[in-house]
Amino acid sequence: MPRPSVREQLVDAAAECFHERGYNGTGIQDIARTAGVPKGSVYNHFASKEALAAEVMDRYAVSRKLEMLRDKAVAPVPRLRAHFEYLASDLKQFSFERGCMFGNFGAELSNHSDAMRGKVDSGLTLWTSAVTQVLEEARAAGALMTSLTPDQLGQFLVNAWEGAVLRAKVTRSRTPLDGFFVVFDSFVA
Amino acid sequence: MPRPSVREQLVDAAAECFHERGYNGTGIQDIARTAGVPKGSVYNHFASKEALAAEVMDRYAVSRKLEMLRDKAVAPVPRLRAHFEYLASDLKQFSFERGCMFGNFGAELSNHSDAMRGKVDSGLTLWTSAVTQVLEEARAAGALMTSLTPDQLGQFLVNAWEGAVLRAKVTRSRTPLDGFFVVFDSFVA
Repeated sequence: MPRPSVREQLVDAAAECFHERGYNGTGIQDIARTAGVPKGSVYNHFASKEALAAEVMDRYAVSRKLEMLRDKAVAPVPRLRAHFEYLASDLKQFSFERGCMFGNFGAELSNHSDAMRGKVDSGLTLWTSAVTQVLEEARAAGALMTSLTPDQLGQFLVNAWEGAVLRAKVTRSRTPLDGFFVVFDSFVA
Repeated sequence: MPRPSVREQLVDAAAECFHERGYNGTGIQDIARTAGVPKGSVYNHFASKEALAAEVMDRYAVSRKLEMLRDKAVAPVPRLRAHFEYLASDLKQFSFERGCMFGNFGAELSNHSDAMRGKVDSGLTLWTSAVTQVLEEARAAGALMTSLTPDQLGQFLVNAWEGAVLRAKVTRSRTPLDGFFVVFDSFVA
């Protein structure tokens, strides 16, 4: 494998630090130390901590694997459920302690940085729209057992997931995610 | 009205700063300046920023008005709905920008401070239990239109509310809370 560039090492290190300690809890020095590079070299690659955080968010958005939601080889309801299970398995790696970066940055930065608020907003909007699309397919297949529209349910489920992930972080347990799945199952056939 | 003590002024100021800027985004100097007292006097009243934050959380928990949930003069479903509407009106004061302190501190501090994680956990647990109790009453009155138990629904609704509040913060709009109420209404008679 080719050696990762310093720029890539910095994005990896920043993702690790921001996810574990939050934005304001992470200094440029922490990122440089984690990447194993001198502090000064961070500014050779990124104009600011915020610019680095924006790149971390872009990469985090890709890691959500929205393409799972577009895989028509799987029926809509199992496809959507498998997507949330994938997200749960990602959280389990860190004993549910770290939470979702959309949620963490949304809570910490929405009224400090319009750029970061925009990143979180567009990430959640894109995801909501992919979830809603699967729910449209589920409705067409007669698999929605609720009077709610796919749009109402899609918006609600994404937000309810973020809330469950936050509670999982606070309780350090999967129980809130299990509770999400019980309710999810009550909406579908 | 008697003049508030310096201690009270500090708790007020800290609540204001933490809610607006987060825990790590707030310095002791910011709190002292907001309270209009010298920085040194903060440590005359509180051992640490964390001790001050713990008192802010206790006061925030009281401001959630859980007593609304125990007011048997109001039928269970309208009582629970009015409680969430009260919380929504509280968020509206700041254009939905500030979010819920349980959610904010939970997201920012859960893996830094066991004391703060404990405060958030016990605050949410107490609230969940009060919500579940109202749902028990609703079920006894034949007003639950779902196969979910009051406990499953109570846990889920509190987490879904926190997620909707976070999304309201990110979008600076009431829309995610409206979405919560639409789904809430689908569960009850």
